[in-house]
Amino acid sequence: MALVESRVMSAADSRPSSTFAFERVRSTTQALCDPLEIEDFVAQSMPDASPAKWHLAHTSWFFEQFILKSHVRDYRSPNPQYEYLFNSYYQGVGPMHERPQRGLLTRPSVAEVMAYRAHVDAQMCELLEERGDDAQIEALTLLGMNHEQQHQELLLTDIKHLFSCNPLRPAYRAVRERTDPSALTPMRFYTFDGGIESIGASGTSFVFDNELPRHKVLLEPFALANRLVTNSEYAEFIRDGGYQRAEVWLSDGWTLINKESWTRPFYWSESLDSEFTLNGMQPLDPAAPVCHLSYYEADAFARWAGARLPSEAEWEIAAAQMPVRGNLLETDVLHPRAAEDGAAHDESQPRQLFGDVDRTRAI
Amino acid sequence: MALVESRVMSAADSRPSSTFAFERVRSTTQALCDPLEIEDFVAQSMPDASPAKWHLAHTSWFFEQFILKSHVRDYRSPNPQYEYLFNSYYQGVGPMHERPQRGLLTRPSVAEVMAYRAHVDAQMCELLEERGDDAQIEALTLLGMNHEQQHQELLLTDIKHLFSCNPLRPAYRAVRERTDPSALTPMRFYTFDGGIESIGASGTSFVFDNELPRHKVLLEPFALANRLVTNSEYAEFIRDGGYQRAEVWLSDGWTLINKESWTRPFYWSESLDSEFTLNGMQPLDPAAPVCHLSYYEADAFARWAGARLPSEAEWEIAAAQMPVRGNLLETDVLHPRAAEDGAAHDESQPRQLFGDVDRTRAI
Amino acid sequence: MALVESRVMSAADSRPSSTFAFERVRSTTQALCDPLEIEDFVAQSMPDASPAKWHLAHTSWFFEQFILKSHVRDYRSPNPQYEYLFNSYYQGVGPMHERPQRGLLTRPSVAEVMAYRAHVDAQMCELLEERGDDAQIEALTLLGMNHEQQHQELLLTDIKHLFSCNPLRPAYRAVRERTDPSALTPMRFYTFDGGIESIGASGTSFVFDNELPRHKVLLEPFALANRLVTNSEYAEFIRDGGYQRAEVWLSDGWTLINKESWTRPFYWSESLDSEFTLNGMQPLDPAAPVCHLSYYEADAFARWAGARLPSEAEWEIAAAQMPVRGNLLETDVLHPRAAEDGAAHDESQPRQLFGDVDRTRAI
Amino acid sequence: MALVESRVMSAADSRPSSTFAFERVRSTTQALCDPLEIEDFVAQSMPDASPAKWHLAHTSWFFEQFILKSHVRDYRSPNPQYEYLFNSYYQGVGPMHERPQRGLLTRPSVAEVMAYRAHVDAQMCELLEERGDDAQIEALTLLGMNHEQQHQELLLTDIKHLFSCNPLRPAYRAVRERTDPSALTPMRFYTFDGGIESIGASGTSFVFDNELPRHKVLLEPFALANRLVTNSEYAEFIRDGGYQRAEVWLSDGWTLINKESWTRPFYWSESLDSEFTLNGMQPLDPAAPVCHLSYYEADAFARWAGARLPSEAEWEIAAAQMPVRGNLLETDVLHPRAAEDGAAHDESQPRQLFGDVDRTRAI
Repeated sequence: MALVESRVMSAADSRPSSTFAFERVRSTTQALCDPLEIEDFVAQSMPDASPAKWHLAHTSWFFEQFILKSHVRDYRSPNPQYEYLFNSYYQGVGPMHERPQRGLLTRPSVAEVMAYRAHVDAQMCELLEERGDDAQIEALTLLGMNHEQQHQELLLTDIKHLFSCNPLRPAYRAVRERTDPSALTPMRFYTFDGGIESIGASGTSFVFDNELPRHKVLLEPFALANRLVTNSEYAEFIRDGGYQRAEVWLSDGWTLINKESWTRPFYWSESLDSEFTLNGMQPLDPAAPVCHLSYYEADAFARWAGARLPSEAEWEIAAAQMPVRGNLLETDVLHPRAAEDGAAHDESQPRQLFGDVDRTRAI
Repeated sequence: MALVESRVMSAADSRPSSTFAFERVRSTTQALCDPLEIEDFVAQSMPDASPAKWHLAHTSWFFEQFILKSHVRDYRSPNPQYEYLFNSYYQGVGPMHERPQRGLLTRPSVAEVMAYRAHVDAQMCELLEERGDDAQIEALTLLGMNHEQQHQELLLTDIKHLFSCNPLRPAYRAVRERTDPSALTPMRFYTFDGGIESIGASGTSFVFDNELPRHKVLLEPFALANRLVTNSEYAEFIRDGGYQRAEVWLSDGWTLINKESWTRPFYWSESLDSEFTLNGMQPLDPAAPVCHLSYYEADAFARWAGARLPSEAEWEIAAAQMPVRGNLLETDVLHPRAAEDGAAHDESQPRQLFGDVDRTRAI
Repeated sequence: MALVESRVMSAADSRPSSTFAFERVRSTTQALCDPLEIEDFVAQSMPDASPAKWHLAHTSWFFEQFILKSHVRDYRSPNPQYEYLFNSYYQGVGPMHERPQRGLLTRPSVAEVMAYRAHVDAQMCELLEERGDDAQIEALTLLGMNHEQQHQELLLTDIKHLFSCNPLRPAYRAVRERTDPSALTPMRFYTFDGGIESIGASGTSFVFDNELPRHKVLLEPFALANRLVTNSEYAEFIRDGGYQRAEVWLSDGWTLINKESWTRPFYWSESLDSEFTLNGMQPLDPAAPVCHLSYYEADAFARWAGARLPSEAEWEIAAAQMPVRGNLLETDVLHPRAAEDGAAHDESQPRQLFGDVDRTRAI
Repeated sequence: MALVESRVMSAADSRPSSTFAFERVRSTTQALCDPLEIEDFVAQSMPDASPAKWHLAHTSWFFEQFILKSHVRDYRSPNPQYEYLFNSYYQGVGPMHERPQRGLLTRPSVAEVMAYRAHVDAQMCELLEERGDDAQIEALTLLGMNHEQQHQELLLTDIKHLFSCNPLRPAYRAVRERTDPSALTPMRFYTFDGGIESIGASGTSFVFDNELPRHKVLLEPFALANRLVTNSEYAEFIRDGGYQRAEVWLSDGWTLINKESWTRPFYWSESLDSEFTLNGMQPLDPAAPVCHLSYYEADAFARWAGARLPSEAEWEIAAAQMPVRGNLLETDVLHPRAAEDGAAHDESQPRQLFGDVDRTRAI
């Protein structure tokens, strides 16, 4: 999934860290929790996931820890122990609650966490009104808002995994729209010349530190498909014995899929005709992009198909020429969709470079 | 802890499985959950524990599975999947949801589980009104009630463990009464002659199958202390290097405490002066019985003290001569108390044979 | 297997700890190693097993540690580090080399271990010649000899397991004799009256501490089969679905066999017609006793057969009335044999109470 | 360690795969085993290591599997099961014996493995005499010889680890030469211009497939130290709290060293003044290169020192300009040595780019 909405604008663009923008991000997070029962906020379905309650608290802790504590005189946290409970990977800040134990924290309750959020929001809005043009406050607020958007995506990903572990197969929400099976756009490749190119962030908008520094890379000529790989194409790989052919897998991947007995994408049914989604079990749309693949699966598919995965630099060079448009959070679909068909689409450029499926966390 | 209230009376004693008795057991379970937040019903703090929600559902499933399905014409469960989710160790009934995954079942919600209980209660009461004198229904109802009382104890034990894992150290409820440190009753031993004795259940009251058959045992003369071992006595064992002396431990026990780095009872603070209880962290009462010991710890303490643990038969012979009276659920204390001092007590017999600390699950 | 030869006689019986008896035990251990390649002395096939080299050294260490160090003036070990390497479970003696790592000790070499044995033997013989009638030396020597006999059994058991892990299925030695398939002695039961009986060692012969003290037990009337359970009887249990029937297994056993995917005795082939032995893979003798069962398997078989396992006291009472005679180490067969048929046997008493299969380590 | 001798010459250079060259590689492997006791050939000290016996057999299996079976009419292996036992990671060839169990294969014995080697050698020499100029045979023989040289390095690395696990700390062999503590060459940096460069193998000599294809890379200007990091420099990092400073470690590395309690290089003594080597425990030479570091440790050191690790391309560009000369197997030292001091060295170029410490397996 690639659910993150377009990033909050940067400092240069008319006060992006205004209370308005801040409140929009914060309220979006809470709105994503609307369909949840209180019970759903508690559980942690694997060590790499976190309870929804934890996401709500941790994103608030971020503002408290890095902004309020240093910029609000005599700031007092509603509960000083929250620093220990809701710190995550910021080793520099101090010790933290062991990650795999997050699902045991039935307290603070959801109500208490929401009160914590309200407290942080009130303090932040007051601070932004008074000193929102302070460069450091602005930069940190912008960082916190982007950080919270990352957790919006994690929150949904984690709920999806949690629900998939429940034999009742609960749905996060009912299907909003269910179109007819999509038409399949034929695959073809766009070629790129390569050469010495620059990748990494440029300009003045907000970026994460791992998007810097901008630097030069040398690219050989390469080609990129006009759309993402579909469920039907991946099913063909499976039916052709893809998971039993050592020769198309990297050695570590082959070891992994045998040790873990993988035979298909994580959320697919054994019959290969349905998958678990945030709308519960749903028929597999043949034309929709395959998703929730590990790096090893994507790589094996590409080798089987006589292609290879694009490098990060190749993808970035291709994407940098395109408008940022796609199936992101604003579409409110929460699942990859088939590529738009030709009629609605400019054939001169690849589709689905943004949204639908996240390529950057593909392992 | 030994929280189970005196058992529901048997069939011979004026309709114990009447709707009145049934409803009393069922409502007691729910009353034990009154102090819980909804979040507290969900989490499972270790594979051997279960979420409160699961206890509530599983005890209802028991009546549905073993009584309603076979004695109510056209009985329909509110959700047929509950049979899979809330079956436990009854292999004969069919497959079941994997035990360590119970904490991931955020659905059915607490409200749905309570509705399930209400449904089962209504059906059971109707059945008991109409056919409560059917011998099989009566016997199974009695079994289900005693089974539920066991889960009342587990529910509290599991909540205690769950809360102990939370750095916030929540209390199940505030201390009801907190007396001054209790007076220590000096320890002395009662002697018993031994001989050929009978143990196992007799009479017509309800018993579990593992209390049968009644059979003869040969006992050498033995002695039993007049009260349970206290916290102060156990602390002396620790301070005397008890956990570092290989010679007082069984070999398996020595391996275990070294592997797990045990240095004191599970719920004790490192400073040996407080312990985690259902009332949160509390000062250790020197005169109260030590509790939550493993079998290995109890055995090592006894060897260190120049004594030994009583055998099951010795304990049963001593207890069979005593009235069933002690710190059980009805006292509403939920923690072991110091033995009553001499004034209030008949010196001719040992104390604390019932209640306070459960000897039968001591590993 | 039950390979231990009749115990060395006790002190009362004409100098059992004479150099002659001592040397006989010591040379027997080495003779058991004759069929081994040097490579076979090194490996440890599981944490509970030990390399042959370790058995040879550890049994020598025992004499050095408990006799030579305290009774030989200025005794010097060939290598003081051997104390650390070859101590086993004697916590009181000091720290020891971690058990699962024994297979990594390629040094000392087999030749060095044999030199260590020769050194200890020479010192012991000299001591026994001079002071063999010292009561303490005599008692400790007797203990060391019996201890070494236990390790003779372990040495063979561990080699058997090690060879079973090798796809080449090496044989410890070729079959010495291979008789025709044995005749099956029909099973019938001997009854015993029970009553108040005494068990535990009596008399003046050597005993291990866990055979004491002699004490009274109360036995109900019971019955014991005239021979051990055979391979064909156990195969019938398997073919009747024994490993798939939860109702004949103890709960822990059922969990274990499912977790470990047990479907037959450890050394049996999947086809149930051959088993791994010290002579390599051999056809299963239908009339020979089934061996290498866990306690859970023996218990499940008994329940399936409508019987139960005898208690330790029942077995001891029956065996105490019999002459110690059976398929022990002296027969040099190294595998259980079918019960002798009626002609050769006194029908008034059960067979195979000694030798063939060890009942005391059955888990 | 970087023990591999200069590669066997390629086909173009006067018959490198002649029987002479073949026999030289094969006999070198066996010569490396001269100091071993038979016992040392058996054990496997961790899943990633292999017993010496396995290395000897596996390298022979390679020639049998890929050359003899297809080029010798009616070729018969001494034991067809060897194919299963001594296959390693060649999935395409078929199933194989589980890697962590290699230490349990006490058979075939060392003598049998040596006979297997002799058989393969005889067959190979005969084939090379007759058809050594067949292009395919020549190429595969060359590959097998280079493959065997890799296993020569592994064999020594694995023996080193095995001996380090033994409290007796055996030495593979006595120190040949022990010079005075070396003089420390001051560190300074050579600068490189970068630009579009080519890396990957060129020319006609033998190369492994992962050295191809030769391709272009873009390099920014960079600098490389004139020698390897020394033990004294690394000790300073440790004494400065390097292993306790989260900020100099990659996140995965920080997790790893805390989980595994790493506080120093694997073979260093706790006192930081000696290290385990193939000559047993030896004083640490302050001027010698630090070795047996994980990637995470090397990276953390570099960050602490205000530098960074060179990329593969940077290292290759620097090394490609240098003669292949250094402390390789031919020096027969088997441990990294201090960089030669200035007098003996051309100051215009970096030292120690070859030999001493292997950079390519640094994790």
